[in-house]
Amino acid sequence: METEFVARLLAAIPSDPRLDVPPGDDAAVLRPPAMRRTVVTVDMLMDGVDFILGDGCTPAQVGHKALAVNLSDLAAMAARPEAVVVAVALPRQDGDAIGRGLLEGILPLAEAHGVTLAGGDTNAWNGPLVVSITAIGSVAPGRAWRRDGAQVGDLLCVTGPLGGSILGRHLAVNPRCREAIAIAEAYEVHAAIDISDGLTLDVSRMMQASGTGAVLQLDAIPVHADAERLAAQATDGTSPLDHALGDGEDFELVLAMPAAEARRLAASSPDSIGTSVVVIGEVVAEPGLRARDAAGAVTPLTPRGYVHDFDA
Amino acid sequence: METEFVARLLAAIPSDPRLDVPPGDDAAVLRPPAMRRTVVTVDMLMDGVDFILGDGCTPAQVGHKALAVNLSDLAAMAARPEAVVVAVALPRQDGDAIGRGLLEGILPLAEAHGVTLAGGDTNAWNGPLVVSITAIGSVAPGRAWRRDGAQVGDLLCVTGPLGGSILGRHLAVNPRCREAIAIAEAYEVHAAIDISDGLTLDVSRMMQASGTGAVLQLDAIPVHADAERLAAQATDGTSPLDHALGDGEDFELVLAMPAAEARRLAASSPDSIGTSVVVIGEVVAEPGLRARDAAGAVTPLTPRGYVHDFDA
Repeated sequence: METEFVARLLAAIPSDPRLDVPPGDDAAVLRPPAMRRTVVTVDMLMDGVDFILGDGCTPAQVGHKALAVNLSDLAAMAARPEAVVVAVALPRQDGDAIGRGLLEGILPLAEAHGVTLAGGDTNAWNGPLVVSITAIGSVAPGRAWRRDGAQVGDLLCVTGPLGGSILGRHLAVNPRCREAIAIAEAYEVHAAIDISDGLTLDVSRMMQASGTGAVLQLDAIPVHADAERLAAQATDGTSPLDHALGDGEDFELVLAMPAAEARRLAASSPDSIGTSVVVIGEVVAEPGLRARDAAGAVTPLTPRGYVHDFDA
Repeated sequence: METEFVARLLAAIPSDPRLDVPPGDDAAVLRPPAMRRTVVTVDMLMDGVDFILGDGCTPAQVGHKALAVNLSDLAAMAARPEAVVVAVALPRQDGDAIGRGLLEGILPLAEAHGVTLAGGDTNAWNGPLVVSITAIGSVAPGRAWRRDGAQVGDLLCVTGPLGGSILGRHLAVNPRCREAIAIAEAYEVHAAIDISDGLTLDVSRMMQASGTGAVLQLDAIPVHADAERLAAQATDGTSPLDHALGDGEDFELVLAMPAAEARRLAASSPDSIGTSVVVIGEVVAEPGLRARDAAGAVTPLTPRGYVHDFDA
C-alpha cells in the first residue's frame, strides 16, 4: 500500500548494496551480512503521547525521534544498524506536508548511522499522526548485549547525564549506537538496557531479568543540566536527582560490567568511545533497588518512570 | 517500551530455535537462514480505515488481518515467512481486552505459517486502535518475485476469484504463502504482486514497474460469489465483474509468466499448489491497461481501486 510518502522516501535515498531488489516492491530484499545475527526492534510513536505536534514540535522532530528510539534499542543490544522500514498514519489534513517533514528528520539520522531505508507503508486517516519504525541491525553470534546477564558484583555504568529530557532531549534523541559498538569491541559487558522509561524503572527491569538487585550510589548519578533547570522552574519540590532517577527518555545506556572492566571504561578518555561513562552503582544478590547516599546510608528505592497504562 | 500486551504475546508462544535471545529484551535476535536473503515488509492498519472495530469486527479479526496482509506481501515475493514484530496503539478504554483479542487472531495464523513472534511495542492512548506488523521472511538469492519483471508475451494469472471482499474476506484474509512457494518451486514466474487495492490498480502497478502494458480478457476473470452477492444487494448498477476488477482486498496473487508456464500452471491440479490458477490476460508492449470482451473488442480500461489520499 505504498504511496506518495513512501515513493518520495524511496526516491530520496541512494541505492544501497545491501538491497537486492529496488525499493518500491511488495517487500524489501536485504542481503544479511555474512556470519552475523539479525537484530529486530519496533517502536510506535503517537501524537499526544510521545510528542505533541505543533506545540513546539515539528514533523521533522517526530521523524528524528521515531528513528532515534529504534536505533537506541539496537545500541542496547550492541547491534550495528542496517535497515529500517517506516509505517505512518498521516492526518488527512496536511498529510503531505507532514510526510515531507518526517522525511527531513529521518533521512539525516539514517545517513549518519549508515542505515538504509528499505521500505514502508503510508496511510491517510482522520486521526492523529502515528509513526511506527522497525529497525534491523546485525551483531556477531553470541555478542548481543542482553538485559538478563547482570551478575552479582558487577558495577552499573551509564553513558551520560540524566533527567529533564522533556526540555528538549526527548525529541533530539542521540542514540548511542557508535558508543555501544566501541564499548562492545573493547570491554566485557554482562547486560545492557537503554533508558527509555526512567533510570530506576529500566534498571529494575534489568535486575528482574537477571535475577539480581541493585544499589545505586545517589551522589554518583550524573545529573543533566536540564534536570537542574527543570527543578528550578517547577514548584512541586522535585529535585534534580529525582528527575535523573525517574524522568526517562534519556536514551543513555545502562551497562552491567565486571568491576575491573567498569572502572577501566569509566577511566577511559571520552574520545576513545565517544562519551564519558560513569559508575552509578553495583549489582547485588538481594532483589529490588536500593539507594546509598553520600553518608553511606542505604534505603529502599521505588522504581519510577513512564508506564503505559490501560483502563481495566 | 514493551508492557502487558507484549509480555502476554511473548509468554503465549513457544521458544523457537530461530531466536537467539529470549523474547522481551530491547530487540529480538534472529538467526538468519544460511544462504538466503532477508525479506522485510510492514503494513499498518487503523480503526475506521482498514476495519471498523465493533461493527461486526472483533479485535481477533483485526489481529488476523494485520498479520495476514503482511504474509500476503511475503507471498508476493515468494518468500518463506520467518518472524514478525507487532506494534500496537491500544485505546485506553478496554485496551487490555482488545490486546488479548488481537493475540487470539495473530497466534493461530502465525502458527499455521510457521512464523515466530519475535517482539513488539505496545502503547495506550485515547485514539483509535492502530496495529503495525513487520514481517520478515527469507528467499534464496535471486529468487524473489519482483513486480518489475513482466515481459511482453507473458500471460497474467490470478490465484483465486475476485470481488466483493467487503462481505467478509477483507477480514478473513487467506495469504497465499504456501501457494506462492509451491509455484516458485515448480514454475518460472517473471513478476508478481498481491491484490490489495484492486485487480486493475495492482496490475497497472506491475505494468508500470515493468515498462509494459496489459490486456485483460474480461470473460476469463474469475468472479467471486461475494461479488455476485454484492452486486445483487446494491442498486448502483455495479456489476459483479466491476467488483472483481476494482474492489481490492482480495489478497490473491497476480503472476506474469511465460505463456507455456502459465498454461501448464493453469492446467495443473489444484491439489498440487493449493489453489486453482486462472489465466486472465497477457502482457503487451503498449503501456496502460486494456480490456478484451468475449467478442474480441478491445477498449481502454481505467485502473480502479483503493487510493490513499490527502487533503493538499
